[in-house]
Amino acid sequence: MTLKVVSAKLAAEIDKELMGPRIGFTLEQLMELAGFSVAQAVTRQFHLKKVVGEKTNVFVIAGPGNNGGDGLVCARHLKLFGYNPIVYYPIRSNRTEFYKQLTKQLEFFKVPILSGDDADSWKEFVKPDKTLCIVDAIFGFSFKPPLREPFQSIVDELHTLQEHIPIVSVDIPSGWDVDKGPVSEKYINPNVLVSLTVPKPCSELLDPKKTTHYIGGRFIPRDFANKYGFEPFGYEGTDQVLKL
Amino acid sequence: MTLKVVSAKLAAEIDKELMGPRIGFTLEQLMELAGFSVAQAVTRQFHLKKVVGEKTNVFVIAGPGNNGGDGLVCARHLKLFGYNPIVYYPIRSNRTEFYKQLTKQLEFFKVPILSGDDADSWKEFVKPDKTLCIVDAIFGFSFKPPLREPFQSIVDELHTLQEHIPIVSVDIPSGWDVDKGPVSEKYINPNVLVSLTVPKPCSELLDPKKTTHYIGGRFIPRDFANKYGFEPFGYEGTDQVLKL
Repeated sequence: MTLKVVSAKLAAEIDKELMGPRIGFTLEQLMELAGFSVAQAVTRQFHLKKVVGEKTNVFVIAGPGNNGGDGLVCARHLKLFGYNPIVYYPIRSNRTEFYKQLTKQLEFFKVPILSGDDADSWKEFVKPDKTLCIVDAIFGFSFKPPLREPFQSIVDELHTLQEHIPIVSVDIPSGWDVDKGPVSEKYINPNVLVSLTVPKPCSELLDPKKTTHYIGGRFIPRDFANKYGFEPFGYEGTDQVLKL
Repeated sequence: MTLKVVSAKLAAEIDKELMGPRIGFTLEQLMELAGFSVAQAVTRQFHLKKVVGEKTNVFVIAGPGNNGGDGLVCARHLKLFGYNPIVYYPIRSNRTEFYKQLTKQLEFFKVPILSGDDADSWKEFVKPDKTLCIVDAIFGFSFKPPLREPFQSIVDELHTLQEHIPIVSVDIPSGWDVDKGPVSEKYINPNVLVSLTVPKPCSELLDPKKTTHYIGGRFIPRDFANKYGFEPFGYEGTDQVLKL
């Protein structure tokens, strides 16, 4: 039987094997490709109109782990694509030197980065007349409920903001249980989901009429997908995302 | 005055600054984007016809340094794009663990890798009826003549092979002096040049009627280009290459 989704547990195994001694991908490589794919999905969904006064802002909220790293990379590529990303990175990862480098790269590109000190003011940077979308890169497939602060408050705010500004979730809607879906009443219901490598079970709970679903993270061969029980996706040409 | 090309010396400074403490790009990131851009240029120039019996092979010759690394990354992406890359990597870099990982990644994708032991037989893998093009990723902007073996012999062979099979050179035609051009009679005259970040002086010696010129390596903002005296390139959408 072919899997349409892989569980949190299987996703963790895939990730571990991709960066393990046999295959040897580095985090830097996979994150660059994943972040690029999210940026490409944003451009597909939210076209940049080259007209003065048109919205160009993309508000990227980056979590403390690898999902957040994908968001940081995404923001850099969006800047190169002509968008105006603003990053909110409340808890900076200090796991590795590479995470510090990702924020340096954004500073090099003059992308504003809000920090934990902006807990009360970040919403001022998100305005329906200026912001094309919010990229939710808070948590990915390794998230386990419950949400902790400051992310509980951020998700609560996003629950309200999504009435006015579309949300693009990276891999899973943040705060959802990867396998089971929403765990509280104030949950994120994204307009766009960019699943990475292969969708996770909670993606099946999204209403296709409300949420446009992309797959990104194009870096595995057919054999490897089949070994884990799913089929590779039919990306076109050199595209790094595919609308499902 | 706006520069159209940057010298070997300036290119080295740009590279050093991009990966220096202020900007903090890692080699893994820049190589992934550069190699991807070369693969995208190949797809633009050599369309894959989805017909049985049509040519699908791309023969990638990788040198011992970073230009070779770009070639290894390019080969992996070409495989994902449906091409059939074959890599000739006569002198494997052992500078860093990352270079070993790049070859592991290719093995994971079942891309054949010829080694120094194939010095006499590699040409059997390059056939006009099967090979769409040869990617020359032997030397880049840090090359200083003269060519040494085995690369002198390889370039001599490419000089003959280019009569029948198009060559795609990465950054500069291998064996050329970066600033001055060909230094011997049997030189590579590529059908395609993919300049990385900004063209090098020797690219101005290429005949535009013979050589299609792309720029790739889309990872610097306007200010940075201007600081080094050149203008950024007008890439379209999410493209990683631009035909000049």
